[in-house]
Amino acid sequence: MIIGDGMADRPLRELNHQTPLEAAETENLDRLALEGVSGLLDPISPGIAPGSDAANLSIIGYDPYKACTGRGAFEAAGAGIELKPGDVAFRCNFATVNEDFVIVDERAGRIREDALKLADALKEIRLKENSDIEVIFRHSFGFRGVLVLRGDRISPSVASMMPKAGDKTGIFKPLDASVEAKRTSNALNEFFKISHELLRDHPVNKKRRSEGKPPANAVIPWGAGKLPCIKPFQEKYKLKAACIAAVSLIKGIARLAGIKFVDVPGATGYIDTDTFAKADAALRAIKTCDMVILHVEGPDEASHEGNIEGKISIIEKIDSMVGRIIDNIDLDEVSVVLLADHTTSIRHRKHTGDPVPITIASSEVLRDEIQRYNEREACRGGLGRIQGRHVMPLILNLMCRPEVLGG
Amino acid sequence: MIIGDGMADRPLRELNHQTPLEAAETENLDRLALEGVSGLLDPISPGIAPGSDAANLSIIGYDPYKACTGRGAFEAAGAGIELKPGDVAFRCNFATVNEDFVIVDERAGRIREDALKLADALKEIRLKENSDIEVIFRHSFGFRGVLVLRGDRISPSVASMMPKAGDKTGIFKPLDASVEAKRTSNALNEFFKISHELLRDHPVNKKRRSEGKPPANAVIPWGAGKLPCIKPFQEKYKLKAACIAAVSLIKGIARLAGIKFVDVPGATGYIDTDTFAKADAALRAIKTCDMVILHVEGPDEASHEGNIEGKISIIEKIDSMVGRIIDNIDLDEVSVVLLADHTTSIRHRKHTGDPVPITIASSEVLRDEIQRYNEREACRGGLGRIQGRHVMPLILNLMCRPEVLGG
Repeated sequence: MIIGDGMADRPLRELNHQTPLEAAETENLDRLALEGVSGLLDPISPGIAPGSDAANLSIIGYDPYKACTGRGAFEAAGAGIELKPGDVAFRCNFATVNEDFVIVDERAGRIREDALKLADALKEIRLKENSDIEVIFRHSFGFRGVLVLRGDRISPSVASMMPKAGDKTGIFKPLDASVEAKRTSNALNEFFKISHELLRDHPVNKKRRSEGKPPANAVIPWGAGKLPCIKPFQEKYKLKAACIAAVSLIKGIARLAGIKFVDVPGATGYIDTDTFAKADAALRAIKTCDMVILHVEGPDEASHEGNIEGKISIIEKIDSMVGRIIDNIDLDEVSVVLLADHTTSIRHRKHTGDPVPITIASSEVLRDEIQRYNEREACRGGLGRIQGRHVMPLILNLMCRPEVLGG
Repeated sequence: MIIGDGMADRPLRELNHQTPLEAAETENLDRLALEGVSGLLDPISPGIAPGSDAANLSIIGYDPYKACTGRGAFEAAGAGIELKPGDVAFRCNFATVNEDFVIVDERAGRIREDALKLADALKEIRLKENSDIEVIFRHSFGFRGVLVLRGDRISPSVASMMPKAGDKTGIFKPLDASVEAKRTSNALNEFFKISHELLRDHPVNKKRRSEGKPPANAVIPWGAGKLPCIKPFQEKYKLKAACIAAVSLIKGIARLAGIKFVDVPGATGYIDTDTFAKADAALRAIKTCDMVILHVEGPDEASHEGNIEGKISIIEKIDSMVGRIIDNIDLDEVSVVLLADHTTSIRHRKHTGDPVPITIASSEVLRDEIQRYNEREACRGGLGRIQGRHVMPLILNLMCRPEVLGG
């Protein structure tokens, strides 16, 4: 299963009303379309815009209305934190704020390696005013980190919003009237203050300033979540699966679903990722697994940045990655499911509720007439219009081990 | 959103196996298809034939299995009666009955203005035998009126069936064994008797007889209903909407959903309606609203009458109406959703469970290859086959304010 995150799009004036998938050179994706059956996929249902958590959970068969317990939980699991019931987890941005705590850059200049060093300084934070709440902080990826609060009577009703440049930060308010939300917001406020003091004059930030780079002088938690109840993938489907991805959300979903996660050096979660390294890792994994989930984050990142060229270039890199894979497998033995987890509109720089194209290439499927993998062609494909929750049943069926009803 | 009531149909032998939409000249509807994406829409789900209440509620996102509490409630609201919980509301036909109370004409010769005068005579009715039940009667449209019974312990388990010529009327039986149903049927029987006495020798009817027209000497209640629980549209979708329609059902749905209703002089709810007046009202309304629902009843009326020519002619009037609209908007700014609320089969003179064509014209959608708006072409369109409950999520998504799941 090859997932291009946010790879689908709407027609763009700049591309003569084509989508990036239509405008890109995608001979290998098109080979899959040619040798397979295509269709439209609503990750949730028509018109609903999923976050990447909801979309990817839905596609691997978990009801997103139940399993989406706040993105922070998946991010924390992806960063290797063993969550306990009762914990409240946050995703965090390393960000640049001014002296009034107004966000200047919510990604601190897309900080990467430097964030790892800064995270070290935050490892030992103990709260004093809220000393019954334990703090766990971990760098996850690029400008991202995760924060877990552990203690009695805390709540995820706090810090839901993504930080944006121009917003004031540093004071987190409870989102309901409960004692738990109040306690949690107090802890967050104290964490923010302590971390800001540790980061402000950190040597890494001094160096960044001297190089004209925005300092990562704040850590802003958001996307509060709790441990979801997810039935292990292997138990649910009797399949041994592996997952290859760069971003901690997907790592976290894999970890919480008990799916083996394969780390790939060179996978950056951005458009500069090493797609060949990922292809090779997938080819190795499929030798010992029933199913490999190969996720590429780049198209979503390019879309959120409004970067049309970048989106086309990462789509073409995914195309080469797919070429490497299908040159080294036999479609009689290994089927390929190619899809996007959701549409990310470059024009609007956000996820939308449009359907995505899906292609299933296998010697077991009835080939249709579709010869290109894109949004416009897919609607005439043999799969018709399906939903995220149908994907795993279709894959099990393809493997000739469908879920059976009655008998 | 432009709704042609019952506009879709089955192929007709008389039209060389075309549907009325295929046989009509519809250059403007086809322009929408050309500049948009089309598909098939099941108002409820495949094969289910909806009443106009269920179909229109479903299309604007209300679960018809919950919101359809009896057509009378919507008709009464549409006629301007403020329903209270506990009320039982009926739609009514002004009809012609003979001395044995057998229905001779269930629409009293499609009586119109005369019905308004006759309704005046029924305004002050007080029940004597059932004096604890209050009666409210109002003319609504053409041959139609509404009756509301107000009092304790009454029930809509009575008078469900549409009156038909040849049926005996005047005695309404309870449809269950409850005291409430018995009390309600007693009240209805008394109302029928009193109203018949008031109408029988009314000067209007004397005049109608002398002119050879069937007298409206009876009011027959049917479609008993109770106040439904409907979340206000604006609260549900954060959209300011307006509705343009002639018939009281649609008025009632709008009223109960808190949608602003725009009265249009010349809108008759029949094939002689002034569609240009409706187009102009819609163009005015869209300047101050996020969404305008423009409903045209005519095709359904023609279908129930088995009037093929009439159906084609009202479809062509809708086409001109659409032309007036799209000549005066910019599809970059205003999207058009064109659909029928359900199929009404001319051959069978009733609603059927066939899907209807839907077209969404907008600069935001991926245009497909469909160049005509009709039942046959729509099935190859880019929308695939969707359901009524998907329409509002798709519209919100088109507006780039989709419902979001996860984060």
